[in-house]
Amino acid sequence: MTTKRIEIVQDILNVNDQIAEQTSSELHLHHIFSMNIMASPGAGKTSLIMRTLAALSPEIRSAVLEGDTAPVTIDAEKISGIGIPAIQINTGGDCHLNANLVRKGIQALDLDTLDLIIVENVGNLICPASWKLGTDINVVIASIPEGDDKPYKYPNIYRGIQALVLNKIDLKPYVDFNVSYFKAGITALNPQVEFFEVSSKTGEGIDAWTAWLREKITQLS
Amino acid sequence: MTTKRIEIVQDILNVNDQIAEQTSSELHLHHIFSMNIMASPGAGKTSLIMRTLAALSPEIRSAVLEGDTAPVTIDAEKISGIGIPAIQINTGGDCHLNANLVRKGIQALDLDTLDLIIVENVGNLICPASWKLGTDINVVIASIPEGDDKPYKYPNIYRGIQALVLNKIDLKPYVDFNVSYFKAGITALNPQVEFFEVSSKTGEGIDAWTAWLREKITQLS
Repeated sequence: MTTKRIEIVQDILNVNDQIAEQTSSELHLHHIFSMNIMASPGAGKTSLIMRTLAALSPEIRSAVLEGDTAPVTIDAEKISGIGIPAIQINTGGDCHLNANLVRKGIQALDLDTLDLIIVENVGNLICPASWKLGTDINVVIASIPEGDDKPYKYPNIYRGIQALVLNKIDLKPYVDFNVSYFKAGITALNPQVEFFEVSSKTGEGIDAWTAWLREKITQLS
Repeated sequence: MTTKRIEIVQDILNVNDQIAEQTSSELHLHHIFSMNIMASPGAGKTSLIMRTLAALSPEIRSAVLEGDTAPVTIDAEKISGIGIPAIQINTGGDCHLNANLVRKGIQALDLDTLDLIIVENVGNLICPASWKLGTDINVVIASIPEGDDKPYKYPNIYRGIQALVLNKIDLKPYVDFNVSYFKAGITALNPQVEFFEVSSKTGEGIDAWTAWLREKITQLS
């Protein structure tokens, strides 16, 4: 019975990956760059997205897909409150977005008017790692108060990412956090990852992050 | 195919609950109180457990089961370093403990020498909510830097708990966190939950939390 379940789950993953590839092709046809943002609950995904949108607008036209496990529109309302199209995706309790949900979200957008789609995944350091969404890059946002041991405890999430944004560096004076130990844990898993240290609260470091992202977006368009 | 998968998952949940009941009965036969601790990654589960063990020892004889998604013994080593039996349970990438894993962990302990078993679940605000472990109480540890909106975004985890420990209150001066808004979100889901505000770093509030816990443990023995 266990074996049967594993087979079926693999089928679902294969279908997921096929849908992710369709999403990728469709977005590239429209010269849209896309980014999947993953993090623990409370690492500051939405705040970083708000800062990122503020830095990229109006030259880069963006939309955001907001993944939530419940029908709560707190984050989507923040995004649409600054004039950016936001689609809320409710996973119905599931611990991750999947390619099909993202595809449905994308179908609700006018792709001819966009350069960038940011997907805010469900707050979770485990489940999202296994599900391709069809985005160009995957990013993990970590934060100083979460502690520097996370790459050692939750290794899978760091393996498939292109960038790591370490948020809440304004809290460094008040929290024990060894940046070298943290980075060493990630580069051991994924030597190519780009690191950015930022504070969405003070704005520190946001320029370097958005400059890198702007270059990625421009390369595609 | 989707329907078949749901049936099989329900079977597994039923088996899980049966094992959880066996665990509960066995621990009660030995007059052992047990507690399942759930939280986001980095909320401070292990630090709070260390503080709790320090406050309860040596009158209350404890052991800790450490849930991890990877074969990493950082937390288990911290616990055993202060002379408390610690068993590491590696979920092999799964986002939660289940009753069978906990049962195996308990079988590795000498139950005649214990009054309390603390189970540290995998850091995750979604998956652990669905899996009974057979413990007497379930506790969520939240932390100030995670933000006050978590009960609204991750409601399921708060429904089955008896206590909420709000950790890292030493960071209140540096983070926007509305305690009333946070508590209101939880009491709307679960009016009976006990609240504790603590700092595992400074020790503030630990006495009230451990006094409550000591009473629960004593009631059983």
